[in-house]
Amino acid sequence: MQDKHLLIVGAGLCGSLLALKLAQHGYKITLVEKRPDLRNADISAGRSINLAFSDRGLKGIKRVGLEDKVKVLCIPMNGRMLHDKNSNTKLSPYSGQDGNYINSISRSGLNALLLDEVEKHDNVHLIFQAACQNVDVESAKAEFINEKTDVNFHVQADYIIGTDGAGSVVRQALMKNRELRFSFSQNFLTHGYKELSILPKNGEHQIYKNALHIWPRGENMLIALPNLDGSFTVTLFLAYEGGDYNFNNLTNPKIVEEYFKKDYPDAHALMPHLKEEFFDNPTAALGTVRCSPWTYKKTLIMGDAAHAIVPFYGQGMNASFEDVAVFDDILNEVDFDLDKAFSEFSQTRKQDADGIADLALDNFHEMKAHTAQELFLQKRQLELAFEKEFPDDYASKYSLVTFNEDIGYHDAKVRGRAQDKVILYLLKEGHLPEHLSLKEKLEIVKTHTNRYLEDEVINV
Amino acid sequence: MQDKHLLIVGAGLCGSLLALKLAQHGYKITLVEKRPDLRNADISAGRSINLAFSDRGLKGIKRVGLEDKVKVLCIPMNGRMLHDKNSNTKLSPYSGQDGNYINSISRSGLNALLLDEVEKHDNVHLIFQAACQNVDVESAKAEFINEKTDVNFHVQADYIIGTDGAGSVVRQALMKNRELRFSFSQNFLTHGYKELSILPKNGEHQIYKNALHIWPRGENMLIALPNLDGSFTVTLFLAYEGGDYNFNNLTNPKIVEEYFKKDYPDAHALMPHLKEEFFDNPTAALGTVRCSPWTYKKTLIMGDAAHAIVPFYGQGMNASFEDVAVFDDILNEVDFDLDKAFSEFSQTRKQDADGIADLALDNFHEMKAHTAQELFLQKRQLELAFEKEFPDDYASKYSLVTFNEDIGYHDAKVRGRAQDKVILYLLKEGHLPEHLSLKEKLEIVKTHTNRYLEDEVINV
Repeated sequence: MQDKHLLIVGAGLCGSLLALKLAQHGYKITLVEKRPDLRNADISAGRSINLAFSDRGLKGIKRVGLEDKVKVLCIPMNGRMLHDKNSNTKLSPYSGQDGNYINSISRSGLNALLLDEVEKHDNVHLIFQAACQNVDVESAKAEFINEKTDVNFHVQADYIIGTDGAGSVVRQALMKNRELRFSFSQNFLTHGYKELSILPKNGEHQIYKNALHIWPRGENMLIALPNLDGSFTVTLFLAYEGGDYNFNNLTNPKIVEEYFKKDYPDAHALMPHLKEEFFDNPTAALGTVRCSPWTYKKTLIMGDAAHAIVPFYGQGMNASFEDVAVFDDILNEVDFDLDKAFSEFSQTRKQDADGIADLALDNFHEMKAHTAQELFLQKRQLELAFEKEFPDDYASKYSLVTFNEDIGYHDAKVRGRAQDKVILYLLKEGHLPEHLSLKEKLEIVKTHTNRYLEDEVINV
Repeated sequence: MQDKHLLIVGAGLCGSLLALKLAQHGYKITLVEKRPDLRNADISAGRSINLAFSDRGLKGIKRVGLEDKVKVLCIPMNGRMLHDKNSNTKLSPYSGQDGNYINSISRSGLNALLLDEVEKHDNVHLIFQAACQNVDVESAKAEFINEKTDVNFHVQADYIIGTDGAGSVVRQALMKNRELRFSFSQNFLTHGYKELSILPKNGEHQIYKNALHIWPRGENMLIALPNLDGSFTVTLFLAYEGGDYNFNNLTNPKIVEEYFKKDYPDAHALMPHLKEEFFDNPTAALGTVRCSPWTYKKTLIMGDAAHAIVPFYGQGMNASFEDVAVFDDILNEVDFDLDKAFSEFSQTRKQDADGIADLALDNFHEMKAHTAQELFLQKRQLELAFEKEFPDDYASKYSLVTFNEDIGYHDAKVRGRAQDKVILYLLKEGHLPEHLSLKEKLEIVKTHTNRYLEDEVINV
């Protein structure tokens, strides 16, 4: 039983899971969220944003014993369903191994479940609609304003953990501290995104339910993830400028229809509300936030507050949930000394956060362009065969990141990038001819990859 | 004669030079500075910070016709005077070409000169001790607070240019604008710096006047630049942690004396006030700020506000003065259309700002470590010989950056880095044997450099 009082700023996915785990350890928790309680808010059915949930996220969920309750919310996606301009489709599995899949899950559904569980603990005080105004990172005191009454109040804790997302106020407090010499970067892609939808027909999914659908178009792309109610949440990733169509020139229904008919004809046929949705829904930016250190004295940041990434690996929530698992491991290792845990977490987790940030940027290019290229398809075929025949001997970059939660993101990045380069090179140069057995091909790939990795070490 | 009203926030070196140039063009200028007028402030003689002033800075100064007045303030430095641990010294010239030198100049002396010249113009309104609180980047309106009276006032201009340094308030206003998707990074070195001094003896410099003195010690270093009054401003660059001595453990006079006696014995002998200065003077951080874009609607940032760099290439002020020259070129090209000029400047200058930021980081490592290494010394010898014998055919990285102001920083970085890599490789592998003529050696270096640069282009 721990007697410290922790203030957690932000009750999104990361903050709620963290509060639950720390409540289970017996800490006194104040969990404060800026927005209204999403369990009471009027959210139109099926229109909530969905997310990809996979093994690293599950690692965090297992820590709090919620795997069975989360499973009910999940729709398995076995691979990418690629749609070409002529409406042909092709399923590209995520892994050659059976039982390796990712899941589509509702953000609000998952968040609601976590909040329900948090509220079962008497040692948690949950406050909604209170925006953090300022944090004293040395004394663990934070000021809030109640958004309904406009009344200010403050919370004096023993420690503060900021899980308040990409625009974190807690992070801004760290940044203002000159003594800390806080390194920080925010970088935006040339592309933004907009959410749209494919509604159910007679309560059923109108396209194949158990896949993440992609319409890769070189510079831009459309994707769709299934919801439990039979709908799909569709996301358009489009450049702000340049090319024939972009967010700056899609300014009237006519040109929007023209673009979708031309580039995404099969999706377009299933989106009768496109014109309305396109202009009703916001266009949002795609940014990466990196910073260091994540802690100072009595304050720590975690999740998107510490490492916001672009969504292209489906790892944002998974990385945040893994943060909670990693932090929990460290807490146990240092015998619940929070000062030591904050410092250790900030130092050891940073490299993996940078790893997934880089990987997510890699995958942006891979998804919108490479998935449709012949050499890339050959590589995928080969890797799937390796994974199927030699499950203990090979995992693709995607599998390393998504299904091998015991390997850190950084190591997954280094090995995964090397494998990608080596296989594409070997295929291009004809060094993996047909007459070789699969086993022989695997040996060649592994030898070249290891040699490449050794060279990298020497070059550093 | 231009009829627009420009508000320039910050009357440091960049803001003062810019105000002067724009006043010469006939614009109405309001120039607002947070600090008191440095011409009236009580600054102890000879203790003001000095800077390295070289050809790119001169390019800006020539634009306003002040080269003769600036020359009076300059002390030429012909090279680096290297001091080893046994107090041996060795002069390493900056260039093999005569007439290529950099200058030590007083920051406050130069700023005072620029302010004097600014005040000669009736179309400039100069306001001191007014801190910018907020900027409306769309309407070109800025709020200030008078630091003596605490009274707020605002300035409504046609355009705003922020030259308010590394902690720019104008940049923060751009950053707050979500529509802009402002990319930003601040990164700190593991090292900080502290200014100390070597006082004059009988009004004379106690060590060789016409050099930039360096005591390279691997991880840390001391440097000294001459002042007109016979003193030197000495700067210690030291890690905050790690190693035997660092800023975190130099906590009492005894250990400071011990460190200086051991690592900088000849300098220590000339610094009787070391103990007092070390604890009286602040320790400051070394940061790099990068951002993009530099403009939005009626607002632009320039100088350190747009690109703060570490001081190791002596190019901070030079880059800012070159900004003014580049902006002036653009203004003339676009026929004084300020909207066009802001946009063009932000787009075209960014690459060179990134270039000098990278180069300055390179030189940190070169100055504290490489300057004392045998292979590096051989490389310098060879490059100096090339520059002397074939002045039209070769310029070292240092010369490209410092003395070739017609080449952009970016190009200087790309070519300079390639040359460095190639020469070090050739020397190490014995590919530049003694029996070759200097001309033959130059041909080998040029061939390899060009091949390396071609490979780089292919690899991108």
